[in-house]
Amino acid sequence: MSADQRFESLGLVLPPPPKPIGVYKPFLQVGNMVYVSGHGTFQPDGTLLIGKVGVDFDKEGAKASAQLVGLAILATLKANLGSLDKIDRVVKVLGMVNCVSDFEAHPYVINGCSELFEQVWGQEKGIGVRSAVGMGSLPDNIPVEIEAQFLLGE
Amino acid sequence: MSADQRFESLGLVLPPPPKPIGVYKPFLQVGNMVYVSGHGTFQPDGTLLIGKVGVDFDKEGAKASAQLVGLAILATLKANLGSLDKIDRVVKVLGMVNCVSDFEAHPYVINGCSELFEQVWGQEKGIGVRSAVGMGSLPDNIPVEIEAQFLLGE
Amino acid sequence: MSADQRFESLGLVLPPPPKPIGVYKPFLQVGNMVYVSGHGTFQPDGTLLIGKVGVDFDKEGAKASAQLVGLAILATLKANLGSLDKIDRVVKVLGMVNCVSDFEAHPYVINGCSELFEQVWGQEKGIGVRSAVGMGSLPDNIPVEIEAQFLLGE
Repeated sequence: MSADQRFESLGLVLPPPPKPIGVYKPFLQVGNMVYVSGHGTFQPDGTLLIGKVGVDFDKEGAKASAQLVGLAILATLKANLGSLDKIDRVVKVLGMVNCVSDFEAHPYVINGCSELFEQVWGQEKGIGVRSAVGMGSLPDNIPVEIEAQFLLGE
Repeated sequence: MSADQRFESLGLVLPPPPKPIGVYKPFLQVGNMVYVSGHGTFQPDGTLLIGKVGVDFDKEGAKASAQLVGLAILATLKANLGSLDKIDRVVKVLGMVNCVSDFEAHPYVINGCSELFEQVWGQEKGIGVRSAVGMGSLPDNIPVEIEAQFLLGE
Repeated sequence: MSADQRFESLGLVLPPPPKPIGVYKPFLQVGNMVYVSGHGTFQPDGTLLIGKVGVDFDKEGAKASAQLVGLAILATLKANLGSLDKIDRVVKVLGMVNCVSDFEAHPYVINGCSELFEQVWGQEKGIGVRSAVGMGSLPDNIPVEIEAQFLLGE
């Protein structure tokens, strides 16, 4: 199965590809490296899911919100590349959680995005390096923001 | 107009290129990629602008401080490359705001740097991917720190 | 002296190479660039050193914990490459400190890792670009997390 086919089989819905809310591009290709801006928790209708982890979301809710971010990143890739099959592999993920200062389960939360990428591109190509960390705050008080790098196929 | 000429036309003043305040280089070239360390809010006299966003700075003041960071990055590029014309394009910006935990306008703040880069290198080449996020704290209590990647021209 | 010999001469102990605690790889090579995931404060016995900087650690203790992170990164490099000599140079370090909001000595803290890399690969090749910043929280309440990029030799 191709990445597009694997994504279809998950029965998940992509949001509209997010428009920039500042002076940046959501997507940039340099050589065979694709850079994706920090993406937020876009819901299928294109609105943002809002709230702080540890106050408005427990770790399960936060993990579900990280999957929303992953879906927004897939929407950006699809809008710019036409197909998820163009990606050879996930290189790097920076997963940022907007949480209270005693929160400790950042890796569990960001798995919501990483497991989605693994389902789309597989266990070897769908998993890259990662940091999962806790921010003091995020734009519009979204619970999770994730930026990523991908390698394009030949 | 060249990037140097466009910068001149803005009538802005570069600070002295910041010296490292730890064990790092402000600038590193690898192949045609230029990596720039996290830069702080250097004023034209070389001293740091200090304070937390949401306490000591409102979002307009914070945006102006992000422009100071952009100017410090331009000073580092100019000191290491001789000319801003050597840069082909902005690749990536990580904009970090030292703010209170209910601050929400990080993209607006980091635009202070991104709009400067757009003015220097233009709407296509001057804008790359970006994350704009809220930190718990920053060195010396500076309001904004920004790291960036640029592509060199042929 | 080679990097491996310089490391030996320091008399420091590597922890076991950290296993991922989520859906990511600790190490990924793309072309001649090596990406290393955010690493934590692993002690020689493989357990994590825990605590917040400014509460449980002063800046000296935090700097020592950043050296532990550096040693964990060296363990990952050695496990994946066989030898530290395979690295041509340090490219980039993102040093993240889990500290109280009025902490200001992040560069001093992250020097605990950067000075180790300098001792291993030397003053030119062992020092790259860097950001040293303060997080709201980190996984398992570790005091420091560091991600890094290295260039491989020919």
